[in-house]
Amino acid sequence: MTNKIKIGILGYGNLAKGIERNISNFPDLELLAIFTRRDPLQFSNPLILSSEKLMDFQDKIDLLILCGGSNDDLPQQGPELSKYFNTLDSYDNHKLIPHYFEEVNKSALENNKTCLISIGWDPGLFSLNRLIFQSILPKGESYTFWGKGVSQGHSQALRKVPGVKYGVQYTIPIEESIRLVKEGKNPVFQTHEKHKRVCYAVLEEGFDGEEVSETIKNIPNYFKEYQTEVHFISKEDFLKNHSQMPHGGVVLRSGLTGENIQNMEFKLQLENNPDFTSSVLLAYARALYRLSKEKTGAFTIFDIPLAYLSDLDSFDLRKSLL
Amino acid sequence: MTNKIKIGILGYGNLAKGIERNISNFPDLELLAIFTRRDPLQFSNPLILSSEKLMDFQDKIDLLILCGGSNDDLPQQGPELSKYFNTLDSYDNHKLIPHYFEEVNKSALENNKTCLISIGWDPGLFSLNRLIFQSILPKGESYTFWGKGVSQGHSQALRKVPGVKYGVQYTIPIEESIRLVKEGKNPVFQTHEKHKRVCYAVLEEGFDGEEVSETIKNIPNYFKEYQTEVHFISKEDFLKNHSQMPHGGVVLRSGLTGENIQNMEFKLQLENNPDFTSSVLLAYARALYRLSKEKTGAFTIFDIPLAYLSDLDSFDLRKSLL
Repeated sequence: MTNKIKIGILGYGNLAKGIERNISNFPDLELLAIFTRRDPLQFSNPLILSSEKLMDFQDKIDLLILCGGSNDDLPQQGPELSKYFNTLDSYDNHKLIPHYFEEVNKSALENNKTCLISIGWDPGLFSLNRLIFQSILPKGESYTFWGKGVSQGHSQALRKVPGVKYGVQYTIPIEESIRLVKEGKNPVFQTHEKHKRVCYAVLEEGFDGEEVSETIKNIPNYFKEYQTEVHFISKEDFLKNHSQMPHGGVVLRSGLTGENIQNMEFKLQLENNPDFTSSVLLAYARALYRLSKEKTGAFTIFDIPLAYLSDLDSFDLRKSLL
Repeated sequence: MTNKIKIGILGYGNLAKGIERNISNFPDLELLAIFTRRDPLQFSNPLILSSEKLMDFQDKIDLLILCGGSNDDLPQQGPELSKYFNTLDSYDNHKLIPHYFEEVNKSALENNKTCLISIGWDPGLFSLNRLIFQSILPKGESYTFWGKGVSQGHSQALRKVPGVKYGVQYTIPIEESIRLVKEGKNPVFQTHEKHKRVCYAVLEEGFDGEEVSETIKNIPNYFKEYQTEVHFISKEDFLKNHSQMPHGGVVLRSGLTGENIQNMEFKLQLENNPDFTSSVLLAYARALYRLSKEKTGAFTIFDIPLAYLSDLDSFDLRKSLL
C-alpha cells in the first residue's frame, strides 16, 4: 500500500488507546499523531503531541478522529474542528444527535469538509440494523437489549455504598423477555423488565454483607426498580475476573408477513468494549476517506455504502463475500 | 404518497407470489403488472399478463423484478432485460455472480439503466454482514450456518426412496460447532460438521420403517456423510406440521483485538422463506429506484447506502433510529 490514509486522534482516553492498539490490523491506515490536552512529555510515545499542535496538521492528515466525551468535548469540538478537518466521532447522546448533526453539517459544508458522526455500535451498528430490520419488516417491533456488560454509572453508584471496597455492575438482558419478543408477541416492556442488574463486590472489613446488600438493592433509579443480585467475592477473585470491560447486546425484530413470524437478530458479545468500538471507528475511517473524495457535509452510518468499509475492491467483494 | 414507485414482476412462482402478498406493507410501492409465460387467463388476477406484453411497459414501470430461477431464467433474462428496464433480481449462483454482474453491467451501462443483482438473504443480507464483520474484525474468521430450514434438494432425494409417501428434510446447524466458533477457536469444519439433516416422512403401507430409514441414511452426498435422523410420522401430523417453508441461518465472526475475543452475529429465523425474501426485494426495490436517479450500471447490496431502504427521510432516520 503506497498511499496510506493518514489519521490523527484528538484525546487520549480508552477509545484513543483502543485505536492505537488496533490500527495495525488495518494495513491501509496510518496513525500520524495523537493530540492531548495533557503534557505530552509524560508519555513515552513520540506520536503523542500537545493539542496546541493540532492546527499544524491540517495538510498532513486525511482525517481526525475525535475521541472526546459526548457531554463535555464533542458538542464544542465537532462543530469547531469540522471547519478544518474531515472528522469522525462516536457522539452518543441519542436525543441530541439531530442537533449535533446540524451543527457539524453547517461547518463542514461551509468549509468543504466531510464528517461522519455517531459511529460505534450504539449509536452505530445497532442503528444500522434497526434501520435494515424496520425497512424489510414494516409490520413488527424492534427491541434493543444491552449486555452482558459493565455499566459505568451503575458501578459508580455501587461503589459509593459504605462497606463496598471494590464493585462492578453488569447489565444483563432478561432471557424470558427476549423469548417473548422472538415469539412475535410484540411485548411492551417497562425498563426493568428488559434487564437485570448483577453486582460483584468486595466487602470492606467490619461491614455486614446482608445489610450492605439491602442498601444497594434499595438505591432508587439504579437498583430498586430492577431485579438486582449482589454477590460478595474475595479481592483476588474480583481483580482476576472482574477487571475487564466486556459489553454487547442484541437488536431484535419480530415482524409479520401474512400470518408468518419472521425474526431478525444482530448480536455482539465483546470481551473488550473500547477495543471493539475503536475497530468500528477504524473501518469507518476508511469509509470516511472514500466519502471525502465525493461529498462534503455531515453524514451518519446510514449514508455509507458498505463496500467503503473494506480494503477489498468491488470485484473481490463480489467474488469472495457475496 | 402521490408518486408511488411503479413495479413490474417477471415470473409467477413462490417469490413473485410473496411480493404480491407483501407489497401492501410498503405504501410507497405499487405493483402494476406480473408477466408470466403461462396463459394469464388461468388466473383471476387482472394484474397478471402474458410476458409478450412486457415491452409495452417500458415507460410505465420504474423497475422490473426478475423472479425467475438462477439456473434457467436469469442468465438470459438479466443481461437482456437490463437493456430496457431497471432490474432487480435474486441471482444466487454464488460462483457465477462475478460473470453475471459483468453481463448485466454491460447492458445497463450501454442503455442507461440501473440494475441491482443478487438481493435476498444469501446472497444478500448475509453477504452484507460478512462484509461488515470482516472489515471491523480483520483478525478472525467468518462462518455461515444455514437452518433450521427446508432443503428442497434433500427433500426430493428423500421422497425418491421407495416406501416414503411424504417427506421433508430440515438442515439444522450443529450447536456444538456454533459454540466452538463463539469461543474464538477459529475451527476448520468439514461440511458434515456444520449441519445435521433431520427427515420427517410418512411411511407407505407395507414397508418396514427400519429398512427405509437405513436406505435414506445411506444415500451418498445427501445423507451418508452427515449426522442424519429419520422420523416417521402420521400423514395428519405431516400435513399439519411440515407443510411450511421455514428457513434461516446465522453469520458469525469471532475476531481478536489484542487478546480479546469479540463476537459478531447476524441471525434469521423465518417461518416463511419466500415471503421474507420478497420483503427484502421490496425494500431494495425502493433503494434501486433512488439509485436509478443517480447512477447507471449494475450494483450489488454492497453499493447501497442503507438509508435508501427506508421510507423515512434522513432527518427522521437520525431522530428515530440512530
